[in-house]
Amino acid sequence: MLTVALPKGELLKHSIRLLKSVGLDFSAFLEEGNRQLQILDASGKARGLKVRAQDVPVYVEYGQAQLGIVGEDVLREKKPLVARLVDLGFGYCRMSVAVKASCPYKSPLDLPVNSRVASKYVNCARDYFQSLDFPVEIIPLYGSVELGPITGMSEAIVDLVSTGKTLKENGLVEIATLYESTAMLIAHPLSYRLNTDGINDWIDQLREGVTTEQLGVRS
Amino acid sequence: MLTVALPKGELLKHSIRLLKSVGLDFSAFLEEGNRQLQILDASGKARGLKVRAQDVPVYVEYGQAQLGIVGEDVLREKKPLVARLVDLGFGYCRMSVAVKASCPYKSPLDLPVNSRVASKYVNCARDYFQSLDFPVEIIPLYGSVELGPITGMSEAIVDLVSTGKTLKENGLVEIATLYESTAMLIAHPLSYRLNTDGINDWIDQLREGVTTEQLGVRS
Repeated sequence: MLTVALPKGELLKHSIRLLKSVGLDFSAFLEEGNRQLQILDASGKARGLKVRAQDVPVYVEYGQAQLGIVGEDVLREKKPLVARLVDLGFGYCRMSVAVKASCPYKSPLDLPVNSRVASKYVNCARDYFQSLDFPVEIIPLYGSVELGPITGMSEAIVDLVSTGKTLKENGLVEIATLYESTAMLIAHPLSYRLNTDGINDWIDQLREGVTTEQLGVRS
Repeated sequence: MLTVALPKGELLKHSIRLLKSVGLDFSAFLEEGNRQLQILDASGKARGLKVRAQDVPVYVEYGQAQLGIVGEDVLREKKPLVARLVDLGFGYCRMSVAVKASCPYKSPLDLPVNSRVASKYVNCARDYFQSLDFPVEIIPLYGSVELGPITGMSEAIVDLVSTGKTLKENGLVEIATLYESTAMLIAHPLSYRLNTDGINDWIDQLREGVTTEQLGVRS
């Protein structure tokens, strides 16, 4: 049976709407008080797993789910061995370098050499500053990265920004964008190549669903 | 000024109660709707940072907080360069190996060689199985580790257990305990040795507060 790994949080509602447009109904995941981590879709054709965004590619890489939906940011940070199939268009955000609004740095290259940069995305942050040939010390944090510059622990942060509200509330400003991120449809590479459980049909339908939705938005 | 890093979640209430017993009032962190990440205590003598449990030792290691309260589990997993000062007694839980109740494994050594073990605590899990000279593959997850055995992705998990309710709900049983964990008072080593901001007085008072509380519990 087809299994789809869905990310908790921001992307869940959109992911469920997209899957519903191709006949897979996982809306039970959205019911208040529903604590289930796996459910069958209403028609019994597929199984859904609701997991942390960072865990989606793990379930897909190990073949426990043939398909998954996850933000580009997670794929860039974890570099999992999964097939990246369709840009789903929703869940836009960007990975940015931000500093205190009161400081004089207008670009990452203005930072003092060997500055401290706090981030939940240590690989993205490290790769970016290496690509600039600019030495910094990355401080790994799990949450509230904006506290780094506020407490003086770090000169800058690398973090996901969607509306920019959190940065503003904390007196921080963006000075560079590493990349933009949207939700991606991913697949277990072997299942994709061997068309296990007929997943290529589902992929085609989802691709079409996305195109129709995007045309709908434009019209 | 003294800065104390406090962990969000389970340990926060207890930590705030303990600090209150030595005259530092951070109870504003518990007010509903309070989104502040740093506050002054009511007397203005100290500053509190409310951060993710995993980030507490980071703020202490970098000296942004002289003191911190964090679970032994985080210290064992991250091995931060901080001074471990007082076992605070609260926040008891244990790091356990668990498997499906329906499987025949009664001990970690009963697992098939090269089994997959899912965990949020990859270092603890790796160290433990290495100490047994038993080869396993660790699968890093961020949440809902119990889905590992349920979906068949892993034979076992290594995870924190407090009441055991989550395991039971998911049909899992513990077959070994790696270690037991309670909340610890930690300090920035240099601040501790140099008695910066008179932190040794605070440490003595907290040590006394814990002893009194433990005696109180016993009587």
